Amino acid sequence: MNRLNFLKSYASLIESELQSIDLPDTPSSLYEPQRYILNNSGKRIRPILSLLGCGLCGVSIEKATPAGLAVELLHNFTLIHDDIMDQAESRRGSESVHIKWDISTAILSGDSMFVQAFLQLHNLHDDIDFKWMHRVFTDSINQVCEGQALDMEFEGRIDVRVDEYLRMISGKTSALTSAALQMGGIAAGASAEKVNMLGRIGHSMGIAFQIQDDMLDVTADAEKFGKRSSGDIYEGKKTFLMVHTLERCTNQEKKWLQNVLENRPLNDDDVKSVEALFDKYGVIKTAKEQMLEYYNEAENTVETFDESKYKADLKDFIKFLKNRDY
Amino acid sequence: MNRLNFLKSYASLIESELQSIDLPDTPSSLYEPQRYILNNSGKRIRPILSLLGCGLCGVSIEKATPAGLAVELLHNFTLIHDDIMDQAESRRGSESVHIKWDISTAILSGDSMFVQAFLQLHNLHDDIDFKWMHRVFTDSINQVCEGQALDMEFEGRIDVRVDEYLRMISGKTSALTSAALQMGGIAAGASAEKVNMLGRIGHSMGIAFQIQDDMLDVTADAEKFGKRSSGDIYEGKKTFLMVHTLERCTNQEKKWLQNVLENRPLNDDDVKSVEALFDKYGVIKTAKEQMLEYYNEAENTVETFDESKYKADLKDFIKFLKNRDY
Repeated sequence: MNRLNFLKSYASLIESELQSIDLPDTPSSLYEPQRYILNNSGKRIRPILSLLGCGLCGVSIEKATPAGLAVELLHNFTLIHDDIMDQAESRRGSESVHIKWDISTAILSGDSMFVQAFLQLHNLHDDIDFKWMHRVFTDSINQVCEGQALDMEFEGRIDVRVDEYLRMISGKTSALTSAALQMGGIAAGASAEKVNMLGRIGHSMGIAFQIQDDMLDVTADAEKFGKRSSGDIYEGKKTFLMVHTLERCTNQEKKWLQNVLENRPLNDDDVKSVEALFDKYGVIKTAKEQMLEYYNEAENTVETFDESKYKADLKDFIKFLKNRDY
Repeated sequence: MNRLNFLKSYASLIESELQSIDLPDTPSSLYEPQRYILNNSGKRIRPILSLLGCGLCGVSIEKATPAGLAVELLHNFTLIHDDIMDQAESRRGSESVHIKWDISTAILSGDSMFVQAFLQLHNLHDDIDFKWMHRVFTDSINQVCEGQALDMEFEGRIDVRVDEYLRMISGKTSALTSAALQMGGIAAGASAEKVNMLGRIGHSMGIAFQIQDDMLDVTADAEKFGKRSSGDIYEGKKTFLMVHTLERCTNQEKKWLQNVLENRPLNDDDVKSVEALFDKYGVIKTAKEQMLEYYNEAENTVETFDESKYKADLKDFIKFLKNRDY
């Protein structure tokens, strides 16, 4: 992410605030896993969005720090629990919490991290509308849970429709990016209208980001190494590409897909045949178009805000995301 | 619990409010387990305490209903996750959520129930101090997590001290009964001093209740059927009786205990020998004394409130608990 240098000051602020969160030493089985996952540093995209949302509304970004931390802690809680549910053994090159410790420890330290996220809200300045902040945050977590539930339900289904896929990623991916920006605005004391606009930006960014992720699974390595990785296809995931293919293909192809998706993981030949179907029905092109549409919508909504350094940085951020190829 | 008839009107109010919580139909894998555990009706002790806390402060108990529901939902969330961690296959005669569905579904529906608990707080009347309510609630959940972590850590330890045991049950059992009463007081708009007193009542009740539970494991069936059940001993749990015995016994006995507790579940002969140690060191008597002390402390603190129907009911409730023999 070295092209993200313009975000470095925001990331540093978040990183130093995360380091200064005073988790107790004991019970160590509760707090060590939380320190572990927080130190296995992510890109801190969500808390940065909170800071930018606050700055965009003309208020010093530091005021949104507790909101950003709450969002980042919440995000890390979902990672701990999702890794158990998805049986993912590693994350960002390190062992998942439930592998390094065990499932019980991962469940409970995740629960505790959920609590820490809510406690962060109590560090917000007294003049901030606590109840509104809490409502936006809690509603978004609700959507994240629904998104994850749909994602798990889709594993056992072949007939996932495009609208269902959109509902799933609206929850799983964009609910929290949307809340992150809104919470920045609420910290700034912005109007409901402005907070609503911030939510739309975060929603569009989240949807675009997820469609792009689904697309990059097939295109990223192909462009860089001449070879597709297609991890999602091997796992039989109901990605943007898959649900659009299912909607466009013949009944015979659908039957075949149904069959291979039921016998996960797919073998190399089947993956190649699935890729051929993606090409046949032009779903990668559709993904690219829709991704650009959502990113453009985000950019257009950003334009409704007054000019500022934060507006420029958010626009650069969206441009950077739009052009990422990994 | 038919001797609890005087609590029936409170329980009915809670039950009908719980039934009217409007959980969505989909994703069904997220909400069905929540409906399932809520319908597998418990005694609703905690939400009743919220109602009594509100009434005790001279305000119509209905005002505390959302607080009581939040506490009950939170309690049920902990049951779902605890049953996974404790590998408990049933609860109140029905299959645990992770058995009836699976571990992933139980983790996620538990997380969602946690969210539903927080959402309930938004049904509180506008004139109630939301931030204070939220703080008391969230702090108590933090303590519940710490208590559960200690309980799990104790499984792998022999050297659990009495003060550590008390810290564990303060979190696992009494944090939420204490919060339930406090939240009732906050809903009533009571002073910090009164809310503090309510917290002390709930804390003492919770500690007394847990010590009693530990004691009844050995005494309940003995009195009724002439035969001890001693389930906790078979499982090698670090109960009040066990930690006090460990503190009083000889080094040789301690070594022996260390050995049998490491090879759980214990066999019948070893359980009998543990019971003999309990008798030798009089720990059942100590448990009874301390339990009564905590219940008395709760009763004395109730006395500081003005006379009312609610005060009388809470006193009856404590008296009932004090005299329970199962």
